[in-house]
Amino acid sequence: MTSRSSQPEECLGGADDIHGLLARFARFGATPGGGVTRLCASPADGEARGLFAALLAEAGAVVTTDGVGNQFGRFPLAGIEGAALVMAGSHLDSQMRAGRLDGALGVAAALDVGRGLMARKRDGARFDADFCAVNWTNEEGARFRPSLLGSGAYAGHHDAAFALSRLDDDGVSLGDALEAIGHRGRDVAPAMAACYLELHVEQGSVLEDDGATIGVVSRNWGALKIEAVFEGEQAHTGPTRMGRRRDALLAAAHAVTAARALADRWPGRLHTSVGRLLVEPNSPNVVPARVSLSLEVRSADDAVLAEAGIRADALLVSAAGAAGVGLTVAVRSERPIRALPDVVCDLVALCAETAGHRMIRMDTVAGHDALSLLGRCPVGLIFVPSIDGIAHNEREATKAADLDAGRDVLLAAADRLCRAGGSPERALRQLGAAA
Amino acid sequence: MTSRSSQPEECLGGADDIHGLLARFARFGATPGGGVTRLCASPADGEARGLFAALLAEAGAVVTTDGVGNQFGRFPLAGIEGAALVMAGSHLDSQMRAGRLDGALGVAAALDVGRGLMARKRDGARFDADFCAVNWTNEEGARFRPSLLGSGAYAGHHDAAFALSRLDDDGVSLGDALEAIGHRGRDVAPAMAACYLELHVEQGSVLEDDGATIGVVSRNWGALKIEAVFEGEQAHTGPTRMGRRRDALLAAAHAVTAARALADRWPGRLHTSVGRLLVEPNSPNVVPARVSLSLEVRSADDAVLAEAGIRADALLVSAAGAAGVGLTVAVRSERPIRALPDVVCDLVALCAETAGHRMIRMDTVAGHDALSLLGRCPVGLIFVPSIDGIAHNEREATKAADLDAGRDVLLAAADRLCRAGGSPERALRQLGAAA
Repeated sequence: MTSRSSQPEECLGGADDIHGLLARFARFGATPGGGVTRLCASPADGEARGLFAALLAEAGAVVTTDGVGNQFGRFPLAGIEGAALVMAGSHLDSQMRAGRLDGALGVAAALDVGRGLMARKRDGARFDADFCAVNWTNEEGARFRPSLLGSGAYAGHHDAAFALSRLDDDGVSLGDALEAIGHRGRDVAPAMAACYLELHVEQGSVLEDDGATIGVVSRNWGALKIEAVFEGEQAHTGPTRMGRRRDALLAAAHAVTAARALADRWPGRLHTSVGRLLVEPNSPNVVPARVSLSLEVRSADDAVLAEAGIRADALLVSAAGAAGVGLTVAVRSERPIRALPDVVCDLVALCAETAGHRMIRMDTVAGHDALSLLGRCPVGLIFVPSIDGIAHNEREATKAADLDAGRDVLLAAADRLCRAGGSPERALRQLGAAA
Repeated sequence: MTSRSSQPEECLGGADDIHGLLARFARFGATPGGGVTRLCASPADGEARGLFAALLAEAGAVVTTDGVGNQFGRFPLAGIEGAALVMAGSHLDSQMRAGRLDGALGVAAALDVGRGLMARKRDGARFDADFCAVNWTNEEGARFRPSLLGSGAYAGHHDAAFALSRLDDDGVSLGDALEAIGHRGRDVAPAMAACYLELHVEQGSVLEDDGATIGVVSRNWGALKIEAVFEGEQAHTGPTRMGRRRDALLAAAHAVTAARALADRWPGRLHTSVGRLLVEPNSPNVVPARVSLSLEVRSADDAVLAEAGIRADALLVSAAGAAGVGLTVAVRSERPIRALPDVVCDLVALCAETAGHRMIRMDTVAGHDALSLLGRCPVGLIFVPSIDGIAHNEREATKAADLDAGRDVLLAAADRLCRAGGSPERALRQLGAAA
């Protein structure tokens, strides 16, 4: 029909492979700078979720959404009720003016892997586990805190009521925001996965510096995250004598500079940051009454992390003291340094090597949904290189060939797992025997 | 009527004197802490403006609103077209969680003085100038910047288009905000006043420390106000190596601590502050890409102000350099140290002394609408004590007797001016002869 062919087929995003899928998701919340702003449970997130659900259903998956908005697409590979579940995914939410890959890569790749496995089933392959592609709610922590909220709820770290009652800076709850975009969900989440895999961009430059294509994450850096509030006294910036001011922003500024100095005590081994800082009332001629800030401390060394944690607590106290203001630590949460299970690392590594990709084992400094599930089920986290290490930035990018490699390794590992009842030990044995 | 008397007469706010008027205005934007949040051109500001206009009209004033929302209530005392105008007023807008006095005192007092002069006219007094009570738009600079916007437009420092195009943090222009509350106005502002008077709370503790009731402001501190923007690079707070971060918040923190240290070079003679700071994207796990802040430097000493200004410029450059980020100075505005005209000071002082009030001459550190008009017409600025020097705070307060004293001195000075064709010289001569 002429009238139809005259419309550009932009909605298909070019080829319907991983690149095409990424292009389609990147339209939701697209920014002028070539990135995305797709905050959790925003209208743009709702659009991305809608596309994910539609493509899952189209590919033959059974789509459910649990009470905190996690989306699951179960591909019925095993053909039996109660089959074990091999799960893969990530998140469709983003930071402000972020890159188009980040969590979208893991979601799109999981969808594409589901399609691939269904095609293999149609071609006669036999599986004894189902595959499930998942989109976790609020991984970023950009709109609602804490981060990793949806995967944390699935893993049992938070209950649904806690997750849904988190508020954004406008006082909107996650529950209401999900309801508003029609993605709160009422389904029961699937039983715990037999194994969980996640493909992600590295967000650093270790792979690039090494010349490797695939990073098999064998350990995560530990992190201490503190939400601190400095309470001073609102006053006029003009007549109020300097000596009687109790300036909450001055305290916060001391904390920010001290946190940076803390990182310099252990060069390369400690990362610190204050990424978020809110000033009240935030008027040019009013001495700030209240400042809340988010302080992070990360290290892969337990001793460094422990000492840095003590120093982080102390620097907040010193900062408050220097400005004569009060200090409340509203949240202090620690993520321990942990190893990811060797067996899944070995399986992914063997899949990568079998396909001829240069692979290294490495740390993740950033948190990922896979870490929520660590300890609850065997997890594997697969990195592909970030060009120039750029992340949480519109210029985030990964070479097309590296994206293909990551997707292929994810497919190979998921395939092996689904043929092995979801057991990484069995999958590794079978793959080792075949290799 | 029973049905009416059953309603409490709260809308009258007790007595209809200055205290009753202040209580009535304090209801608009009232906060749980006993103060007000009545940002410029907010619905609460609209309500306060509505009451002001209604009470002016009720008292026999001709009410007009100019193109930037300044409200004028002209009391026809002289009975002739084109009579000189003695003006008094201040502003009804407030900071967030501010006190109920601040600008409302000067507006309510001007209204009450207008009533008082009209009563004297009815009793046979003869005036040869009209009196005008005024509410200036956006004195505070809390919602729209710069501060003193309405009085600055009247004085010719800004044109109306500039004022109306100022944006709040949500991107709403002053023009649209005024339109939304129905107070943009289409009237031509009155011709420049023959003399302008303003009653205000001191906002410091000079009067209280001295035991004086009336402060006659004879000089204003100079001020340098800088709006600076630090531009870093958005990045992940996890994997991004410390050495390659360009953290805009770190730069801002250096600026805040350096600004405080600057004040310590001239104890008591230099006030510095950063009251406003905005972080983008402001997410816990994103290295801040952009921070804008408002820096103020104030002094009554020209040499100190000049050197502090140079050092303020330099500390911003140093702060940017220390964090490896870019710096843009978006606004750099100076308010010079100036004397207020002796003749108006002498007139107000004589009025205060004649009434038996302990009076001192003093500086204003804060900016006031009177300073916008300084140099355009003779101005007088009258302070009453702030209890404990508290200002821009819900706990701001002034003793009732001091409020009465301030209102009485304003009335006496306005009365003398209106009997002297608006000329402070003539008024002073007449008063001196009478005394």
